Amino acid sequence: MTADRPSAPSSPAVRAGAPVHPPSFQEMWRELHPIGRDADSGGYRRSAWTGADADCRTWFQEQAARRGLAYETDRNGNQWAWLGDPAAGDAVVTGSHLDSVPDGGAFDGPLGVVSAFAALDELRARGAEFTRPLAVTNFGDEEGARFGLACVGSRLTAGQLTKEQAYELRDGDGVRLPEAMEAAGYDPEAIGADPGRLARIGAFVELHVEQGRALDLSGDPVGIASAIWPHGRWRFDFRGEANHAGTTRLADRRDPMLSYAETVLAARREAELAGAVATFGKISVEPNGVNAIPSLVRGWLDARAADQDTLDTVVTAVEKAAREYADRHGVDLAVVRESFTPVVEFAHALRDELGAILRERTGRAVPVLGTGAGHDAGILSASVPTAMLFVRNPTGVSHSPAEHAAEDDCAAGVRALADVLEGLACR
Amino acid sequence: MTADRPSAPSSPAVRAGAPVHPPSFQEMWRELHPIGRDADSGGYRRSAWTGADADCRTWFQEQAARRGLAYETDRNGNQWAWLGDPAAGDAVVTGSHLDSVPDGGAFDGPLGVVSAFAALDELRARGAEFTRPLAVTNFGDEEGARFGLACVGSRLTAGQLTKEQAYELRDGDGVRLPEAMEAAGYDPEAIGADPGRLARIGAFVELHVEQGRALDLSGDPVGIASAIWPHGRWRFDFRGEANHAGTTRLADRRDPMLSYAETVLAARREAELAGAVATFGKISVEPNGVNAIPSLVRGWLDARAADQDTLDTVVTAVEKAAREYADRHGVDLAVVRESFTPVVEFAHALRDELGAILRERTGRAVPVLGTGAGHDAGILSASVPTAMLFVRNPTGVSHSPAEHAAEDDCAAGVRALADVLEGLACR
Repeated sequence: MTADRPSAPSSPAVRAGAPVHPPSFQEMWRELHPIGRDADSGGYRRSAWTGADADCRTWFQEQAARRGLAYETDRNGNQWAWLGDPAAGDAVVTGSHLDSVPDGGAFDGPLGVVSAFAALDELRARGAEFTRPLAVTNFGDEEGARFGLACVGSRLTAGQLTKEQAYELRDGDGVRLPEAMEAAGYDPEAIGADPGRLARIGAFVELHVEQGRALDLSGDPVGIASAIWPHGRWRFDFRGEANHAGTTRLADRRDPMLSYAETVLAARREAELAGAVATFGKISVEPNGVNAIPSLVRGWLDARAADQDTLDTVVTAVEKAAREYADRHGVDLAVVRESFTPVVEFAHALRDELGAILRERTGRAVPVLGTGAGHDAGILSASVPTAMLFVRNPTGVSHSPAEHAAEDDCAAGVRALADVLEGLACR
Repeated sequence: MTADRPSAPSSPAVRAGAPVHPPSFQEMWRELHPIGRDADSGGYRRSAWTGADADCRTWFQEQAARRGLAYETDRNGNQWAWLGDPAAGDAVVTGSHLDSVPDGGAFDGPLGVVSAFAALDELRARGAEFTRPLAVTNFGDEEGARFGLACVGSRLTAGQLTKEQAYELRDGDGVRLPEAMEAAGYDPEAIGADPGRLARIGAFVELHVEQGRALDLSGDPVGIASAIWPHGRWRFDFRGEANHAGTTRLADRRDPMLSYAETVLAARREAELAGAVATFGKISVEPNGVNAIPSLVRGWLDARAADQDTLDTVVTAVEKAAREYADRHGVDLAVVRESFTPVVEFAHALRDELGAILRERTGRAVPVLGTGAGHDAGILSASVPTAMLFVRNPTGVSHSPAEHAAEDDCAAGVRALADVLEGLACR
């Protein structure tokens, strides 16, 4: 497939036509399967504004065309497929993202987009009559795998990230975000807040594979989100002194790897004490030579907790421990908070409405659960009534090629999403 | 400067001519100064078969020409500059290497090559008459920074690394050693043992900046090597399970970063107990994402000790501890010994001869000291009588931009090397 290269940054909505044999859930899944898949790991490498990302975007645009939906990209590169007139307002929007973490799974993101198209097909098959405009979306750069900040597309749109801040973002090769967007055929001059677009949205619903085992433990195929834990990323820069690993006496060393290692263990200990999660999953070492004591060890802490106080307690304790370790080894430490998202409580009225719809359709109560993962829905919830549906993940594994959801559960997710959309947009 | 691209892998020795205003030590030092220097760190990036390495090689060839020395590259890409007829045999050879670790210092390697040319100039200024052929050498890929194995040029020549083994070496980008050699203009088909060349060498003397503080503590500008500690590199592969850092319960994790961190601390502890050195200075993490629990943490242990038993004790204890940590976290561990060099005792007769020459010339005894660093001299000592001279390093810092030797000490090193070469090759 070739890249989607709109001639204008924000293309006008193409007039909706009649659907032409839309592909089934399974067919869509098969089409996406090879895009950006690493043959060795089996994981996906669909970082923002790469070739694999462009192929996913082309796929999205084709899905819109095959269903006669009006396609547009907004000023921030997010994709929209419209049924009905966007200008009418009070739209019901559903979707997720198509990018991935390095060696990510097939479900995180794409399940929400594929299920959105499939739910629309289901509603048409049911003969539903739409009383509100409906859109399917693909938000750009949700994972933040390339530029270090998650949910860039939705943050820009919601005004939570300025154009100036976005222009400062660089990937691991030093490529700046605007350069990457431009190389992918988008106009980085156009990016920025889009309040007019958000004002036309009445409700946003994101379906996502669960990234934990709550539904597996409760025995439910589908759940509703209550809140997203507050979470953030902190960069710990331990600076010591490069030296020869074979000839430098232990007493003469200022080895930052030692303080880093102690801090990794402190993070786990503090998270356990507090009932939170804390992870050092990314590291960068200079000069990173086998026979060289490092001059710099840079480690990133990802920490999350059910409430702000608990999170503060964990991060403060880890930083305090890290400073003690660094002092002991003659190492300098700088800690930078690279991103932070406060607790997100999804709109209670919309959440209750979803619960009522699903209880009526399925005859049973659907569990309501919190999550430690950030989502575009969390970003948009500050501007728009927002809700999330989770689909059971039998192992809880996510951000890994082993990420999985059973076919029956995916089908239950599509049905639940169709029920919700019908309840919201068809009467 | 452009790359040195010999048309044949082993070019025939060019006839020696008259020297044409050879540059002084300081002039040579200034010429080398900018090559491969990183503007930000001030350190050198002269990995084998890169553009910076090619520039260093061109410089070497020019030095030979400016002194009327016969230049050749051998089948393994090592450079030779000959005074007298190589075929006469019993040659006295001196030199070191010009490649560096990432962000290495200016002295480790180049000091030995520059001092070799300067010592030859000094002998000519003294009017010395040479009774044996003399050569200056630059051995390729001494640091092993790119392909993970140190002293590739001398190992190949000495038959301690086979062509087949060398062909298996890959750099961090997956480029194979023969591809890198070919890209640099050398014929990788030609590489292999070179016993005929070694048979024509009567003595090899390598001058090197000290990579420790023994001379600084004893107050001597120059020392003689006694032995190189046994040393090796072990790769520890901790394999866990990639997962989402925000949503995976601590109890459900198989996080290899934790076992890695514990092992880093165990290595330090065991080295302290044994009076050895052990370092984890290089790491590779997959997927290395901020919000991803790693699937793989690969750490390299560099360990050295004064004797084999002590080294075995340290490495065995670190591996045992690592296995316990890995088991506790549900992580798989594989340990691979990537390289190993037994203790090297330099030839006692040659060492004593150097000591006698220097005592006679300077009127004082020169200290004899061991070292934890590997050198081409250590590799060649299995085939050729070999000795080393060390020049004082006031801080002991090496493999760092801060690596240093005072100008007076460098001059003392050149004088000592000239004295030794005169004693060996001029009577």
